[in-house]
Parts: sequence; C-alpha cells; structure tokens
Amino acid sequence: MSLPEWDGRPDTEALREILDGRWGAVRRAAREKMGAAPPASMAGGDLETRRAQVFEDLRALAADGHPRIGFPKEYGGQDDVGGAVVSFEMLGFGDLSLLVKTGVQWGLFGGAIQALGTARHHDAHLRAIMDLELVGCFAMTETGHGSDVASLLTTAVFEPETGEFVIDTPTPAARKDYIGNAARDGRMAVVFAQLPPHGVHAFLVPIRDENGEALPGVLIEDCGEKGGLNGVDNGRLSFDHVRVPREALLNRFADVAADGTYSSPIESPSRRFFTMLGALIRGRISVAGGAGSAAKTALTLAIRYGERRRQFEHPASGGEVAILDYRAHQRKLLPPLATTYALHFAQEALIRSLDESFGRDIGESDQRELESRAAGIKAAATWHASDTIQTCREACGGAGYLAENRLTRLKADTDVFTTFEGDNTVLLQLVAKGLLTRYRHDVDELGTLGLARFLAEQFAEAVIERTPARSVVHRPDPLDREWQLDAFADREKHVVEGLARRLRRAEHADDAFAVFNEAQEQLLKAARVHVDRIVLEAFAAAVPPGDVLLGRVCDLYALSVIEADRAWFLEHGRMNAETAKGVVRTVDELCGFLRPHARALVDAFAIPESLLDVPMLGN
Amino acid sequence: MSLPEWDGRPDTEALREILDGRWGAVRRAAREKMGAAPPASMAGGDLETRRAQVFEDLRALAADGHPRIGFPKEYGGQDDVGGAVVSFEMLGFGDLSLLVKTGVQWGLFGGAIQALGTARHHDAHLRAIMDLELVGCFAMTETGHGSDVASLLTTAVFEPETGEFVIDTPTPAARKDYIGNAARDGRMAVVFAQLPPHGVHAFLVPIRDENGEALPGVLIEDCGEKGGLNGVDNGRLSFDHVRVPREALLNRFADVAADGTYSSPIESPSRRFFTMLGALIRGRISVAGGAGSAAKTALTLAIRYGERRRQFEHPASGGEVAILDYRAHQRKLLPPLATTYALHFAQEALIRSLDESFGRDIGESDQRELESRAAGIKAAATWHASDTIQTCREACGGAGYLAENRLTRLKADTDVFTTFEGDNTVLLQLVAKGLLTRYRHDVDELGTLGLARFLAEQFAEAVIERTPARSVVHRPDPLDREWQLDAFADREKHVVEGLARRLRRAEHADDAFAVFNEAQEQLLKAARVHVDRIVLEAFAAAVPPGDVLLGRVCDLYALSVIEADRAWFLEHGRMNAETAKGVVRTVDELCGFLRPHARALVDAFAIPESLLDVPMLGN
Repeated sequence: MSLPEWDGRPDTEALREILDGRWGAVRRAAREKMGAAPPASMAGGDLETRRAQVFEDLRALAADGHPRIGFPKEYGGQDDVGGAVVSFEMLGFGDLSLLVKTGVQWGLFGGAIQALGTARHHDAHLRAIMDLELVGCFAMTETGHGSDVASLLTTAVFEPETGEFVIDTPTPAARKDYIGNAARDGRMAVVFAQLPPHGVHAFLVPIRDENGEALPGVLIEDCGEKGGLNGVDNGRLSFDHVRVPREALLNRFADVAADGTYSSPIESPSRRFFTMLGALIRGRISVAGGAGSAAKTALTLAIRYGERRRQFEHPASGGEVAILDYRAHQRKLLPPLATTYALHFAQEALIRSLDESFGRDIGESDQRELESRAAGIKAAATWHASDTIQTCREACGGAGYLAENRLTRLKADTDVFTTFEGDNTVLLQLVAKGLLTRYRHDVDELGTLGLARFLAEQFAEAVIERTPARSVVHRPDPLDREWQLDAFADREKHVVEGLARRLRRAEHADDAFAVFNEAQEQLLKAARVHVDRIVLEAFAAAVPPGDVLLGRVCDLYALSVIEADRAWFLEHGRMNAETAKGVVRTVDELCGFLRPHARALVDAFAIPESLLDVPMLGN
Repeated sequence: MSLPEWDGRPDTEALREILDGRWGAVRRAAREKMGAAPPASMAGGDLETRRAQVFEDLRALAADGHPRIGFPKEYGGQDDVGGAVVSFEMLGFGDLSLLVKTGVQWGLFGGAIQALGTARHHDAHLRAIMDLELVGCFAMTETGHGSDVASLLTTAVFEPETGEFVIDTPTPAARKDYIGNAARDGRMAVVFAQLPPHGVHAFLVPIRDENGEALPGVLIEDCGEKGGLNGVDNGRLSFDHVRVPREALLNRFADVAADGTYSSPIESPSRRFFTMLGALIRGRISVAGGAGSAAKTALTLAIRYGERRRQFEHPASGGEVAILDYRAHQRKLLPPLATTYALHFAQEALIRSLDESFGRDIGESDQRELESRAAGIKAAATWHASDTIQTCREACGGAGYLAENRLTRLKADTDVFTTFEGDNTVLLQLVAKGLLTRYRHDVDELGTLGLARFLAEQFAEAVIERTPARSVVHRPDPLDREWQLDAFADREKHVVEGLARRLRRAEHADDAFAVFNEAQEQLLKAARVHVDRIVLEAFAAAVPPGDVLLGRVCDLYALSVIEADRAWFLEHGRMNAETAKGVVRTVDELCGFLRPHARALVDAFAIPESLLDVPMLGN
C-alpha cells in the first residue's frame, strides 16, 4: 500500500477551532491573558524565591477571578465544571508549579469542601477560598499509605462530652506526607482520617494561626527540595490529639449527631467510601489535561527546533539538512504528536461527560464508567507526557538540556504526574477490575443458552488463533478507519475475555493471590488496550468528514499503537506477517506525509508565543 | 515450560567478585575511599555553591592521586588505561557533576593532550593537569555543529611571518558551546578548528589569565542552569583572532613547519580525521561506565524500597504486601536489573579491549571494530540508565520524587548522557554503517560462486519466512543459552542483510538520500540488534558454569530482549505464536524466580552504604 497524494494545505485556524472544542471561549480567554502576562514564576530561582513567586502568581489569578469558573453561582462562581478543568489545562502552558498550586488550592482543597461538604462549609469558606483569603491543603496521603486510601491510619474520634472530634497521628506511618501548601502557605487542611468504625472520612482542620504559626498539636515539616515543582510548598502534617468541632466533618455523605450517632444516606460502607472518592474525580481529570499541555509545549519547541537545526550535508544539494527531515527524527516526534492529538480529543470527551454528569445522580454504573475513564486517561496522558517531553529534550540535544529552553523543567515538573493523584499502575489495575466486573455482569446476563453460544464463539476464536489466515481473507487496509477501530475493539475483547478465564481459576486455587499476581501483565494489558480503544474512538469521532490532514494524524495514532503491539496481533492470528510489516511501512509513510505539516499541527495548539520565546528558537 | 526449582542461596561475595573482574583492586580501593568520605558536592545547593563544592572535591581527588592511574609513568602516572576507565566508573556512585568534571579535566582535556599531542605538550602540561594546577576545557562542539564535527566553523590560520596560528570564530554558529570548565574554572582549552585546507585539528589555546580574567580576544559566556550536572560550569567560548604559537598545534597526527608546510604520517584527510577522533575513544567508553553506576545506584535504592514498602492487604494472610512481591513491580525492576548486569559485562569486555589495544597499532579494521563497539555500548548504556532511573523514580512514588532520596538528581544528571559524547541516534547510525561496510566486504570476498550460494541461502530464508514452522520443528527452549545466542545472531544477520539489499537500490536511485532516509528504522534496528548480540555474548561468557543464579539473570536479559522484539521474530518466521507466548511466560516466571534474590543481586554491586543512606530507606 502507498499513501495517496494530498495537495491540500493545512488550515491552522480550522485545526485550532476543532481542538478548541466546546470550551473554546475559555481557551481563547486564557491564551490572551497568559500571552500578555506570562507567570512571573517561570523565571526560576531557589526554593524560597520560587515559592514566593508562585504564591504571588496565585494571588494574581485569584484577583483576576480565575477560580470562580468552577464554583457555585450562589457563592459568586460560574458553575462551569468543564470550563474549570479546561482553564486549569491552559495554565499547563506556563509554570507547572503554579498549575499544581491552583490545583491544590481550588481543585483539591476547595473542590473537596465543595464536593464532600454541605452548606455550612460552603457558606463559611468558599468565597474566602476563591479569594485566597483562606489557603488550604488536601491531606490524604500518609507516609505509610498512598495508594491504599482505605488503610489510612490517622484517626478522628468523636467525644460526645465535648462535641469534638479528636484528630490524631498514632504512628509515624500515619503522618500526612507530600501535602501541597503545607510547608508554607496553608492555614487549614481537609484531613482524611478513620472515623472508627465507619472508615475514612474528611475533616476540616485548622493548621496555622493568622501569623502563620503552627497551631498547638500540629507538627508541620517541610518536604524540602523535590525533583521538580519546587514552587509548591509540600510538607508533612502530624496531629497530636487536635480537637475540632463536630461541624468540621464534611458531612455530605455521612454525619455524626451531637450524641455521637452516625448516619449516612449510603448504607454500604464500601459504597460510601467509593462515593466520597468518586466525588473527587475532577482532580484526576485535571491532571491529565495539565500533562497534555506540557506535552504540547514540548512538542512545539522540539518541532520548531527540528525545522531550524541543520546537521550534515545533503549528498545531492550540498546544503545542510534540517534534522526534522531525517526519518529517524520524524519517527521520534511525529507519533507522539499524533498521540497528543488523540489524547486531547479523549480528554475533551471526558470533560464533556464530567460536565454533563456534575451534580446529577447518573447511577452507579455510569459513575463507575466515568471514574474508570478518568483513571485510564490520567495514566495514559501522564505517561505520554513524561515520555514525550523526554524525547523532545533528547531531540534538541545540548540545547534541550539548558534550563533556558524550558524542556528540562517541563520534564522535572511533570515527572510526578505519573504517580500522584493515583499511581498510574494502580489506576490501570482499577480500570482492569472495572472491565472484569462489567464482563462478568454481561456473561451472567447471558444465561445458559447465551453461555453456550459464548463458549462456542470462544472455541471458534481459538481455532482462528491457530490459523493466521483471517486477516488475509479480509484483505486488511491499515488506512481504513473501520479496520483500525475493529482491530482495537477486537483486541480489547479478546484480552479481557482471556483475563477473565484466567482469573476464574483463581476462585478455586489454593493461593488465589498467586494466580491473580501472576496475571498482572495481562491485567495491565487489558486496561491499556481498553484506554487505547476509547482514545481512538474519541479521535475518530472528532475528525470532520473529508479532513485529510487530521485523518492522517488519526491514522498515525492508530497505526503506531498497532505497530508497538503487533506482536499481540501476530500471536493471536489477528494479522499475518505481511500485514504487520505493512503497518510498519505505513507508519513510516505517514511520518513522511506529515513532515511538511508538522509546524502547522503544533501551531494549532495555539500556545502563546511569549511562552515559546526561548533562546534556542531565537535568531 | 516451567522453571526448574533452585534451592541454592545467593553468594553475594562471589557475585561481587565476578562483577569486579580484572580491575577488582581498583574497584575495591575506590569503594573504600568513597564509602569513608562521600563527595561533599552531593549535598546540593544553588549554582555557585554547587560549582564551588565540586571544584573542591576535584581538588581532593587530585591531591589523592586519583587522576594518575591513566597517565604515562614517565610523568608520574600508572599507565593503566583500563583502570582509569574503571575508576571513573566508580565515581558514578557519587555526585555525577564531580564525575563529569573529572571527565572534562582528566579525560577530555588531559586525554586529548595525551592522545593528540606529543612530548612537548606532555612535558609542559601533563603534571600540572594531574595536579589541577592547570584546569582545562575540551572545546569541540559549536552552537551550529554538534554531531557533524567535520563541518566545524572555527578557523586556525597559520601565519608564517609571525609563526602563529590565528584562532577565530567567524560566525555566531561557530561559537564553542556547552563546554565544561569554561564558565568558571578553565585556564586553557583544547580547541578544535579548521586548518584550511587540511580539515579539523586541535590547538591549545589559553583562555584565562592567572587571576581568572578572560584573555584578550576570548569571549566567555555562562550556559547557566542546566537540567542537571549543575556542579559543572558549562560555558561558551568565542575567539576574535586569538594568536597562539605554532607549537600549540597538537601534532601527533599532523604538523605545520615554520614555513607553513603541512605534513602528516596519514595521507588520507578523512582517515586522518577519523584517527584523531578515534584517539578520543576513552571518553565515550567512560560515559557508558558512569551511566552504568548511576543505574546500579537507582536499582539498589528502588529494590530496597520495594522490599520495605508495603501497600494493600494480602487476601489470605491479612498482612500488607511488600510492593516488590507484586508481579507488576517485579516486571518494572527486574528486567532492567538483568540488563544492568548484561551491560556491566559488555562494558568490562570493552574496557579489556581498549586496555589491550592502547598505544598499539591494532590495524584499521580492529580499530574501527573497537570504535563501533564503544559507540554502540555507549548508546545502549546511557539510554538504559535514563530509562531505568526513571522507572526507579516512579517505583518509589512520592518518596522517589523528593531530592533527599537521590533518584531525581540521578535522573536529571544522567539525562544528557544520551546526547553528549556523541548523540545516541547518530552513534547507532555509525554502528550500522560499520556493519554495512563489513557486510559488503564479506560479500565481495565471496566471489561469483560464493555469491550464488549466498543468494540460494537468501531464497531458502525467504521460504522459511512464509512458513512459520521452523522453530516448531526445532522444539525451541527459551532457557537454552545456545538457542538464545542463535536467536540474537540470526536476527542480526538477517536485519543487516535486508538493510544491505535495500540500500543497494539507493545506488541506482534518482534520490539516493530519500532511499537512505526511508531506511532509517531498519538502519537503527541493525545497530540495536548488533549491540544486543555483543552484550548477550559478553554476559554469557561471564557466567561461570553451574552458576544457576547468574545464569537465570542472563536468561532474563536475553528473554526480555526477545520479548520486546518478538514481533520481529514472528514476522520473520523465526518463532511461532506458541513460542512467542512461551517467551513472555518465561520472563514472568524468571521475575518470580529472581524476586527473592533481588536484594542480593543489587548488594553485589557493592555501592558504599554511606551513599545509599537516604531517608526513604531509614528507620
């Protein structure tokens, strides 16, 4: 197969509008503001300088009304949850410490009070939070427990005599760790603690007085220098029997009466726990967006540099060759560019779902589905950003290693995105568990007759696997979008089914943990191929009919995913060697096809030029 | 297939001795010194503090005689080139700025004078260089040219009237860039410049006076903050018609007489150029060793943390599970551990070759072979270190992101290893070109009869590719070392042959560059699989007969390489689906097998405990 010629020219404006999507107005406004006044904190400096600069920038955002977009209208907000996630994403073009600091203050701290609290908390605090009169922390993670939130050790014991909760850190492992805003600026914290015997709940705990001194019983430590994000003051909090009033409990999903009686509209403790965590979904979605902006910035810098930078003579012309004209260089940068587009559209679709579901009861199954998508896309987007920025750094050689050219700080700052707001590996495990639950539900619904048919299908598939002829018969065309979508969907179905069969054995095994543990690769693969599928579907749906260029970008995304995993397609008889080699060849051809349009494709991200004004791109 | 049981216990001492190899005495001495007094520069601080600390540490090394090992006996050295590379490698357990600073001073600057200069330069400078009385720079890279050294723009024009060379920076692109020791400490530079019309040569150019002021005509700029290695003072040098005496030419391979007559023992200008560059091979080999030490440190930290850190309850025992007991975690850390072992032995073999060839004329073909191996292993080792340290950081979650736990600085400091001392992609292209030259040489030697047989073999292979039955007939055993070695060797042969056939077409193509350019993926693959083969061969040769544990580590290396590239083996009929799935299963089993011995395997690296004393591993 060879790629049909295209003599069109890319329309950057049109591309930009497609990318801008439903919250185009929010994006345009943010671009204008950031372009006119890039965050001062981008300048760098030592730890204390950076922290002070970022806090000043945060103040400027508050003064400008930035946080209002996501808060309720009755408190002066705009009730636009999708817009809040998008406007957070846009900050990702600038200083990522500022991005994370806004996330801590208005997303995690403010967001937790909004989502887990009730009117008494909203009335008391939301305005002050928006205005930055009250700076807060989100104190969930402990030194001993990060991913396993249900096992947190901090305790909150209610004393009916005094009407107070006693917040306590019983062991060093129960210390709250890596808490943003804790080391310098925070005055209050949303503290997650065990309310025996009802499990983890969230409490509002003041930690500093008006002069910034730690309150009695509160021990505050500084996490010090980190690999990046040094404008964020991460710290550690320990509580020595600190007393807070009964009203400090964020009581939307559970309450404690004056006499100590516990009540909750949700009966099952585990469902209650997951409902509380689910209410915090916005943070996870926001992180994926911020990671996407960082990846876009890195690609824009590296692709522009790749067009300017020349090395080695062209054997025919004698002139020096722009490094982006080398296929090896295109191979480094263009598939990640295509994936960045793909994740952008998947993220946009996710934000739309969040926005449409916000504040409504969409039912447990839809809620789980949304959480699963948020988890999967967060993992995919943050790993993608980390890998892509690294690749971009290397693609700019020595220039890429100088701080002034932004790439190293982008890498260092986004590094932790893969392990905070949910460790990516743990998130993928959650996604896989969700897939298994849904699969089992479907199988159960089949009944006896359905099961027989299902098993027959399984058998037919097993036969197909031994005869790598299916795809030959179908004359596969890697550039056919339907073929791509089928390939992704079929792979997901097969991996999930295989995993389910394998884990069913665990039910009768002596060592169920061992069976489950040994299936980890397949479990993580199930999650990955599921995310691949929803991302491709989102991208495919976003390509306007007849848009050749964007269609080719979508092809490059789909085929570079298949290329990377073609061993699976070969092993499972989904593809013969000829088709697999054809996929590799087509990825090569697509890189060549897209090379002349690479600049237009990054320009469509519309990152303000003042944020791209780095020496290596200067004259 | 299932792994045979092994009831042995790892003997850390014995492993350590195998790893220590020929330069065991150098390694032991270095470990003792570093263990007793870790570099002060590990402490951190701002740019100027770091630079000053590293310079102090460099002084301490000089006072201790560290640099003497690699210099000639007649100047007070020990003439132990292999030992010098190994002792550099050992510094990689400590502060990597100090490592690079020693590399600049004694490896690049001192090494260039040693390798390219003659007695007059050695007499004048070698002692002062060892004693750090003369601090120098290696000024090769220019702003406009990094990888393409032959196209450097700095000029050195000889004036017979004055008997001087005039060193000049004709355009901004000719500015020497990213030069270590230039911004703060350097007094002299080895400057690579065009000596018209004879091409690039090296000159000794003083750049600062005794008070540290830039000399007239020398413009020195500071590169400022970098992504890492901030204890190294990288800078930029421009020369405005700076005059140096005729004796400033490092004249081992070419000289200019007082009347301006040029002479060289090497007639071909291109051979002369490559001989000069080849004399600098030590730097490239050293970088690979330093990268290896950083990877070992990261793995030691992450594996120890993985044994301490517990998350989530074990469903049967109720206790919390050590994260290294999760297969997903083993899958992250144990294959990189096996690869670290493999690269260690490949590096040791390379150092032996360097040591045995040093100062001897080993003939052009062997010299090219050595350079190719140095290039390939440098690329493999530095990418491996970068990827592995990143993985280790993520495997330690939030703790891994705190500067106090060393991983983020290890990542930031080694990042540039993949693009300095030869950009890895360019190095792999060199390796591939060497493979093609040798292949063509072999084919030419075949003659007509041989060619017919050769073509018949090609045909037979083509048939095999369409019948994925060969490996079934041979009943492959992934744990059979011969089978692994055959698989690696056969893959290399096939990829190189395919590449040669493809590029032969370029000879008759209208656009030879396009044909060559489109073959980049295959070209880079040829280099990669070649490096894989020599690495596996080195590892296999280092495993003592009957050493079950080290044998299993070697298996894990071999099979994780095959696993990652099993699409190739499937596409080319080298493996059927059953065998490929068996390889994946065996990698899983090997991870389980090695899990209990992971601690012993990293302890055998024998990194001084004082360098591993980080808070996340404290009590």
